[in-house]
Amino acid sequence: MAALVSDSLAKENKDKASENSTAQVIGGHGTNSYSNNSSYQRLSANVVTKKIEDAIMKNLDVETLSSTSNIFRVADFGCGVGSNTINSMQDLLQIVEKKYISQCPTSSQMPEFQVIFNDQFTNDFNTLFTYLPQDKQYLVASVPGSFHNQVLPKSSLHLAHCSYSLHWLSRLPKELRDERSPAWNKGKIHYTSAPPEVLMAYATQFAEDLDDFLSARGREMVSGGMVVIVGSSIPDGMPYSQVVNGIMYDCMGSILMDMVKTGSISEADVDAFNLPIYACPPGEFIEGVERNGLFSIEVIELMNPAPWLKGPIDIPVFVKHVRAAMEGMFSNHFPRKAIDELFDHLVLKLSDISQQLESCYRDGLQLFAILKLK
Amino acid sequence: MAALVSDSLAKENKDKASENSTAQVIGGHGTNSYSNNSSYQRLSANVVTKKIEDAIMKNLDVETLSSTSNIFRVADFGCGVGSNTINSMQDLLQIVEKKYISQCPTSSQMPEFQVIFNDQFTNDFNTLFTYLPQDKQYLVASVPGSFHNQVLPKSSLHLAHCSYSLHWLSRLPKELRDERSPAWNKGKIHYTSAPPEVLMAYATQFAEDLDDFLSARGREMVSGGMVVIVGSSIPDGMPYSQVVNGIMYDCMGSILMDMVKTGSISEADVDAFNLPIYACPPGEFIEGVERNGLFSIEVIELMNPAPWLKGPIDIPVFVKHVRAAMEGMFSNHFPRKAIDELFDHLVLKLSDISQQLESCYRDGLQLFAILKLK
Repeated sequence: MAALVSDSLAKENKDKASENSTAQVIGGHGTNSYSNNSSYQRLSANVVTKKIEDAIMKNLDVETLSSTSNIFRVADFGCGVGSNTINSMQDLLQIVEKKYISQCPTSSQMPEFQVIFNDQFTNDFNTLFTYLPQDKQYLVASVPGSFHNQVLPKSSLHLAHCSYSLHWLSRLPKELRDERSPAWNKGKIHYTSAPPEVLMAYATQFAEDLDDFLSARGREMVSGGMVVIVGSSIPDGMPYSQVVNGIMYDCMGSILMDMVKTGSISEADVDAFNLPIYACPPGEFIEGVERNGLFSIEVIELMNPAPWLKGPIDIPVFVKHVRAAMEGMFSNHFPRKAIDELFDHLVLKLSDISQQLESCYRDGLQLFAILKLK
Repeated sequence: MAALVSDSLAKENKDKASENSTAQVIGGHGTNSYSNNSSYQRLSANVVTKKIEDAIMKNLDVETLSSTSNIFRVADFGCGVGSNTINSMQDLLQIVEKKYISQCPTSSQMPEFQVIFNDQFTNDFNTLFTYLPQDKQYLVASVPGSFHNQVLPKSSLHLAHCSYSLHWLSRLPKELRDERSPAWNKGKIHYTSAPPEVLMAYATQFAEDLDDFLSARGREMVSGGMVVIVGSSIPDGMPYSQVVNGIMYDCMGSILMDMVKTGSISEADVDAFNLPIYACPPGEFIEGVERNGLFSIEVIELMNPAPWLKGPIDIPVFVKHVRAAMEGMFSNHFPRKAIDELFDHLVLKLSDISQQLESCYRDGLQLFAILKLK
């Protein structure tokens, strides 16, 4: 179950562009760094790699894509920091090479491959580069900037990858920052268990962000190019309070409110703080892609992000993973001491409700989608 | 005169690929950082900008270059860290835009511009990105890796810029690491005032590096694309001991040998340490470009890097600049304490010979060259 939760948190802190913070995953190689606390994410990546391979072998026309130039560009949007990022992109390249060999068996040579790593300007690209193998057989570039905007030249990209990044909202909806709005999220930090106006504000912002993402990729990609999207989701109509992340966000909110009582933090700080994370149900995702109109949906499905994981969760290890991914968000808003207190209490609180965590819904919480530029 | 010396040191530590060290300029924004100690370099850049503008307006055929795609890529090879790098590239873009307006006055729109920053994997790209203006009108990428190899896709680059980086040797010549060789550089740290075998070893390595650089750019650039090279040089036949940098390297060597006497460092360490920096005279440069055969030489000249600078030098400020550019090289070889001692003594020693520094040759120490891919 650890992976069930951590997978949907895996890269939550990777491409956050909230107006209120510049949070990012913990860079470097330290004890609390994302790079040293992301092993669960790698396991999850292996599961989707096979699905990507199927889709590429079936749907990606590499011969046409490379007919106008001898370069094939693959980009990771919201790459974050760590070896998982590099490994995922190398997996993708291997699949594309395999497709070349299969589709163009008489071709004298492979195209050149360029792997492009995109994330916010504040991402730790220096550390990311230290994970690149010395004998790599591809060219590398990093491209800083929000993926809600165009960051690459027009018609230059062949394959895009976006894993556990899209659910970051580009900003907190303005209603959540307005005390007089019905979406003012008093005593909570997420739309989980919140009034419907709060959920609506999140959903509207996500729809706008998805449209910006697709429009930007539409400009950057060549016709026929594919976008692989993996990320947090939930079955249509299911309340977020029924899944582990929702329960955890509720716990975090309630711990923070306890800390208000002891005077560690102010109530106004909790009221104004909201996690800018939205798990889009497939129905809304399909609607967004169709409204945008630039891409066809080749594959879309909900998956269990960690079907192999059974048995009790090691909660301290799990919280360490959560912290590596999420600490930045909290530390931009609350004092350092409060963060330690929050995560220490989270271990205790989750341990108290471990039975509830074990038994809650865990199956279709990962969206896997393959889009193709028309 | 400060600029005279510091210009040729400006980026000396920016793209060093010595086998024996992984030196680089001091990153970040600290007191000793390159970014806070490179104001002289900016002054120098202004002088060459006008020359680049003349060459681009006269020689760069932007209409043909952008006929096959609507993207125009400019790359800085050995970019280092700091606002100078960003400013130089923005100056270049302005010039190219001006050429577009002049050459294609009826064109409905400018091409997209992408600025590519290249340097070693160990360069502080994170800090570099913090200098990018928020309202920039161009796309950005960083490309890590030695510029002696191909780092960009074939035929993708239109304009290359390499300022004070080419004089870094990719490695120390092997003769300098062999105690039995006549090029074993006992008690010295550079070819200044050294036996001719030492100079020869440096020159041979530089010729090989220049050939690798040109071959790599030849693959990356489109035909007709231009390379702007600015860097350390010296008139043909002039010994390096006649110029300020040479005198300073001699001072550094002699300070280190004094430190051997006091036991701060070992003699073997000094013997084995050599600055992997070569100021190529124009004759050798022309010979190298012609031997490589891929580029024509459109412009080549020696310049005074800082003709506006008169009067006495502020030696402490100057040494601060030198240290920001060079410290990394020394700190990979000598203990931290020895570095402080070296630069403290350098201030005293240069102050003692300030008259000699003022009167030595300073005119043609900067090579300015514009090459065009055949």
